[in-house]
Amino acid sequence: MSRKIIIDTDPGVDDALAIIMAANSPELEVLGLTTVFGNVSVEQATTNALILSDFASYDIPVYKGEAVPMTRTPAPYADFVHGDDGFGNINWPVSNKQAQNQSAVDFIIEQVRKHPGEITLVPLGPLTNIARVLEKAPDIAGLVKEVVLMGGAARHCGNVSPVAEANIMGDPHAADKVFTADWPVVMIGLDVTSQVLLKQDDMQKIADKNPQQGEFLRQACDFYIDFYQQTLGIAGCMVHDPSTIAYLLDPTLFEIEEGRIRVVTEGLAVGQTTLAPGHRHFPYPGWENLPQQKVCMKVRSQALLDLVTSRLSA
Amino acid sequence: MSRKIIIDTDPGVDDALAIIMAANSPELEVLGLTTVFGNVSVEQATTNALILSDFASYDIPVYKGEAVPMTRTPAPYADFVHGDDGFGNINWPVSNKQAQNQSAVDFIIEQVRKHPGEITLVPLGPLTNIARVLEKAPDIAGLVKEVVLMGGAARHCGNVSPVAEANIMGDPHAADKVFTADWPVVMIGLDVTSQVLLKQDDMQKIADKNPQQGEFLRQACDFYIDFYQQTLGIAGCMVHDPSTIAYLLDPTLFEIEEGRIRVVTEGLAVGQTTLAPGHRHFPYPGWENLPQQKVCMKVRSQALLDLVTSRLSA
Repeated sequence: MSRKIIIDTDPGVDDALAIIMAANSPELEVLGLTTVFGNVSVEQATTNALILSDFASYDIPVYKGEAVPMTRTPAPYADFVHGDDGFGNINWPVSNKQAQNQSAVDFIIEQVRKHPGEITLVPLGPLTNIARVLEKAPDIAGLVKEVVLMGGAARHCGNVSPVAEANIMGDPHAADKVFTADWPVVMIGLDVTSQVLLKQDDMQKIADKNPQQGEFLRQACDFYIDFYQQTLGIAGCMVHDPSTIAYLLDPTLFEIEEGRIRVVTEGLAVGQTTLAPGHRHFPYPGWENLPQQKVCMKVRSQALLDLVTSRLSA
Repeated sequence: MSRKIIIDTDPGVDDALAIIMAANSPELEVLGLTTVFGNVSVEQATTNALILSDFASYDIPVYKGEAVPMTRTPAPYADFVHGDDGFGNINWPVSNKQAQNQSAVDFIIEQVRKHPGEITLVPLGPLTNIARVLEKAPDIAGLVKEVVLMGGAARHCGNVSPVAEANIMGDPHAADKVFTADWPVVMIGLDVTSQVLLKQDDMQKIADKNPQQGEFLRQACDFYIDFYQQTLGIAGCMVHDPSTIAYLLDPTLFEIEEGRIRVVTEGLAVGQTTLAPGHRHFPYPGWENLPQQKVCMKVRSQALLDLVTSRLSA
């Protein structure tokens, strides 16, 4: 039986890689895509999610979500990373389909209640929708199988500040709610996603083997890979969002540390995911009586890359 | 010619190890010990610094410094780590000598102006005295050779909070001033000091070879090593403060990363040393136009331990 997942997303080039990878994986059943602001506006995210749903072999409905963070002033969209259109400025034709009328938050609540203990949430953007779900329906925490999210940096340098990763910085208040809620969270952040690079060559091979999906992905990745080259001087893009799907398919790719996670919501370190390892006590308070969450600290890079490219080439 | 240093200290068991190690090293000339609150009150720190100066083969004067942080409410002293007396509750007899009348801050300013470009400051406690020096005499920044301090955690877990190290937490405002001033700082924090353990056996060997100093150190370390055993379940104490002296004697023991350092002064992450690597730009502001400082990220543990034990056994 395939594992039921809902992908919460702000596509985004690496969101596109993750969603097509998930759609191509028979072990997973994508019940829906819920959209959120982040890499792009929620309107553009919704347009893009509909384009991505067209690449799947089965019907994946799209639900529009939150447009702004819970508390924080919205940050600029990441057009310098993903292009104005979120797909590297390739002007891909829009889908003929429309988003559903139901909101992202209501869809998640409805599905989780319908399939108690069965649904895994896979957030790939700011955690606003997910925190709104907890706020509107606190019972949901006890009914979700797992939350496997891309975001944060436990010991690694951040990417939007020296301590903050972009998705968490997008809505730090929401992220703090999600990490401290009483449900199992797996944090897949820069500690591991920065260790895996997808290169232009890899994308060309995917496009050659699987032109129907791969040509789109290859084109979308051009701008994204160029950003990494220009900004960080590295030849390839980091495999952020697809790492969540890789975790669902094979968690043994990762080395995991358990601990309590809180997010800094203001000041110099805003957006930081702080990790209090295991049950270790600290004199300074703030991490008491919180659930033990999982943080991916190391990854078998080549094996993850092989898994991603094989699923995108299928 | 030996290198002139002033050790700023809140002794403290590991301060004792560092100061006696420095006094035993002919490559170094300890011009004075300046005291500060931290592990103990500044009064106890001054009493303890006088005891330590008696262990040196030459005269090392002691200057009393600041009693409280610049801005922050004082935190409790670390009696659970170092004992009520700072030396593991061994009730060592006090020195017959007295502290000098000059304040720690004035002594540092006077000496640095007297020996421009020659003096290295070695802070082993909260950075209040050092920040007060910068405040009172801004010209000092350009006249100090180097600041080699124990404190902080760049990528490693903190020890008083998941992100904060005790010395920095002791006065985060002062620490932010010290790291961002235009002078060369070397940060020797938990990234390296947590990688080296001094064991009860090592202390016994030191006491056997060098009873005059070593018996005192062995006794003082008992309580300290017991703290590590009880709290962290590790058999030995971390070699925090002596690592600064090891750096002065042989900097090649360490692997260094350069970057801009700022300290979080409030909120959940208070006391954290944030490291912006090299000249990397981040969208979130706060680390622009700051000096490049050195951070010790890795250490050759056994070589450092050998250096520490050999100098303490001499």
